[in-house]
Amino acid sequence: MASAEQAFIDLLRGIVTDPAARELRDDAAVWIPPAGCALVLTHDMLVEGVHFIGDEPPGDIAWKLVAVNLSDLAAKGARPAGMLLGYMLGPDRDWDAAFVAGLGEAASRFGVPLLGGDTVAAPAGAARSFGLTAIGTVANGAPARSGAEPGHELWVTGTIGDAGVGLSLARAGATEPAALLAAYRRPMPRSAEGPALVGHASASADVSDGLLIDARRMAEASGCAVEIDLGQVPLSEALMAFAGEDRAVRLAAATAGDDYEMLLAVPPERGEAVAQAARLRITRVGQFCVGAGLSLRDGNAVVQVPQHLGYQH
Amino acid sequence: MASAEQAFIDLLRGIVTDPAARELRDDAAVWIPPAGCALVLTHDMLVEGVHFIGDEPPGDIAWKLVAVNLSDLAAKGARPAGMLLGYMLGPDRDWDAAFVAGLGEAASRFGVPLLGGDTVAAPAGAARSFGLTAIGTVANGAPARSGAEPGHELWVTGTIGDAGVGLSLARAGATEPAALLAAYRRPMPRSAEGPALVGHASASADVSDGLLIDARRMAEASGCAVEIDLGQVPLSEALMAFAGEDRAVRLAAATAGDDYEMLLAVPPERGEAVAQAARLRITRVGQFCVGAGLSLRDGNAVVQVPQHLGYQH
Repeated sequence: MASAEQAFIDLLRGIVTDPAARELRDDAAVWIPPAGCALVLTHDMLVEGVHFIGDEPPGDIAWKLVAVNLSDLAAKGARPAGMLLGYMLGPDRDWDAAFVAGLGEAASRFGVPLLGGDTVAAPAGAARSFGLTAIGTVANGAPARSGAEPGHELWVTGTIGDAGVGLSLARAGATEPAALLAAYRRPMPRSAEGPALVGHASASADVSDGLLIDARRMAEASGCAVEIDLGQVPLSEALMAFAGEDRAVRLAAATAGDDYEMLLAVPPERGEAVAQAARLRITRVGQFCVGAGLSLRDGNAVVQVPQHLGYQH
Repeated sequence: MASAEQAFIDLLRGIVTDPAARELRDDAAVWIPPAGCALVLTHDMLVEGVHFIGDEPPGDIAWKLVAVNLSDLAAKGARPAGMLLGYMLGPDRDWDAAFVAGLGEAASRFGVPLLGGDTVAAPAGAARSFGLTAIGTVANGAPARSGAEPGHELWVTGTIGDAGVGLSLARAGATEPAALLAAYRRPMPRSAEGPALVGHASASADVSDGLLIDARRMAEASGCAVEIDLGQVPLSEALMAFAGEDRAVRLAAATAGDDYEMLLAVPPERGEAVAQAARLRITRVGQFCVGAGLSLRDGNAVVQVPQHLGYQH
C-alpha cells in the first residue's frame, strides 16, 4: 500500500482536523451543516500551462487554489466550512509534499477544513490540473450578481492592482517589492469581511478577472450600465511607491485581475452603512446607471474604454 | 463572449433545472439543505489515459463520472442532492456537446441537479481530466467503512463482474453482449437502494476496485479478517451465458472492479432484515472473523488468495 497515491493521502491526513473527513478513510465525508443556514458551493480548477506555469512554489499554487474558491464564497457572504481536493499526482514527491504544506497553511489561515477528495495518477508528461470544491454557510441570504439597479453605487474592498504588478515581477524573476509579489502569490480572500458586507449589497461578486470586466459583468447581469471613476480606484502604498499613480497605472490596475477583492452594488442610502460595516478599506468607485455597458472617467475627464478590460475566458 | 468556454457554459445551462444553480451566472451556487440531515460529500476525477482512453463515447464518460460519485453517496446511504462539475475543454465542440448530453441523461436518470462548477481551457495536446463533486443527504447517519466486527456477515447487492467483462469486450471492439457492455459503459449506482440498506449495516462501502480488494479494505479498516465464499459471488445471467460460472470466472468477476454495487457488513441478527429491505438481489458472500486479511473458499474447498485482488491505486 506504499503507492504514490497512498503516500500522498498519508500526507493529506496530516492536515486533516475535522471528524467529518473520517480521516480520509471512507468513501465520502459526512458533515452536519449548522441549522438554518444556506450553503454556498463553488468549484474552481487550476491547470498547468493555463493558470500556472509550473515553476511557482507548489505551496503557492495550493494556497491560490484555496484562495480563489474562498473568494467566491466571500463574494456571496459565506463563511468557509469545508473543502474537497481533486489532486493529480506528479512525478516528484517533494513537489507534492510542498503542495500539501501550502494547502495546510491556507486551511489553517482561513479556518477551512479539508473534508475529502480524490487523488489520481497523471499520464507521463501530462499538464497537471487541480480542482477544489469549497462549501460555505450563509445565514441571511446571498446577493446575486444581478441585483444592481440604476442609481446604486459600486464599491470595492481593499486595493486593486497589486497582484497584476506582482505577476509581472514574478515573471521577470524579481524578488522585490515583497508586498506586490505576495499579493500575486498568496492572495487573501475576503472571508472574514464578506459576511458583514453583503447585507448592505444589492449585488455582489469578486474581482478575479479585473475590476473593469467584473464590474461590466455585474452591470450586464443586472440589465444596467456602470460608470467607473479611475481616479477613485484604490491603490496600495506599495503599488504607488513602485509604479506611481497616474492614469496608466490606474488603468493597468483596473484591468489586471487576481485581486480577489469584493465588488458590491450598494443602494445610496446604504453607502454609509457599508463603509461602517467594513473593518477594512472600502471605496466607492462608480455607479450603476440606466443603459448598458461600461463607461470610464478620471475625475471630470472622460476616459476611452480600453479594448482589454481584464482576463477573458 | 462567444468563447469556447462561454459556449460550453451555454450548453450546460440547457441541463440546469435547479434554482440553486442561479443559471450558472453567479460566483457560486446557493442551496438550502433539508433540515435535520447530514450531508455526504465526495469528489472523484476521471483522467484521460488513466480512467478512460479517449475513444469512448463522450456521453458515457460523463455518465460514468456521475455514477462513480453517486456510488460513493449510495455506499453511505445518501440521496443525491446536487453536483458541481470541473470540466477541461477539448479541441472538439461536438465532443463537448456529447459530454453535456450524457451528463444531462445521468442527472435526469438519478435525479441529481447540476449546481455549478468550473470550465477551463486545456493546453494543446494535454491529457484531459474531469472532476465531479456530489452532495447527498442522509437522515439517520452514515455507516463508516470501519464498523464491521467478527461474526458480522458480508453482503453485496446486485451481481458482480459484468463491467469487467464489458471492459474486455469494449477493448476488443465487440458490440455484444449488450448487457455486459452497458454495465461497463453506463454503470448504475445504488442511489435508490442505499438509503434503505445502510440502517442494517455496521459498515458499508461501494465495490469500485474489485469485490476482493474492497472487502479486504473494509476488514482492514475494521480491524478484523474477512472470508469470502467464491461460490456465493452473484453472477448475472448475461455473464454466465457468455463466460460460464466456474471458479476462474468467479475469481475474475471478484477482482475486476467497476461494479458500483454496495458492500455491507451486517450483524447476523439483521441478515433477514437486510434481505427484506433490499428491493433487489442481495447476497451473503462471506463473513468477518477475528484476525486480519482475506481468505477465500469455494463451498467447502479452500482457494488460494490471488496476487491481484482488484485495481490497485
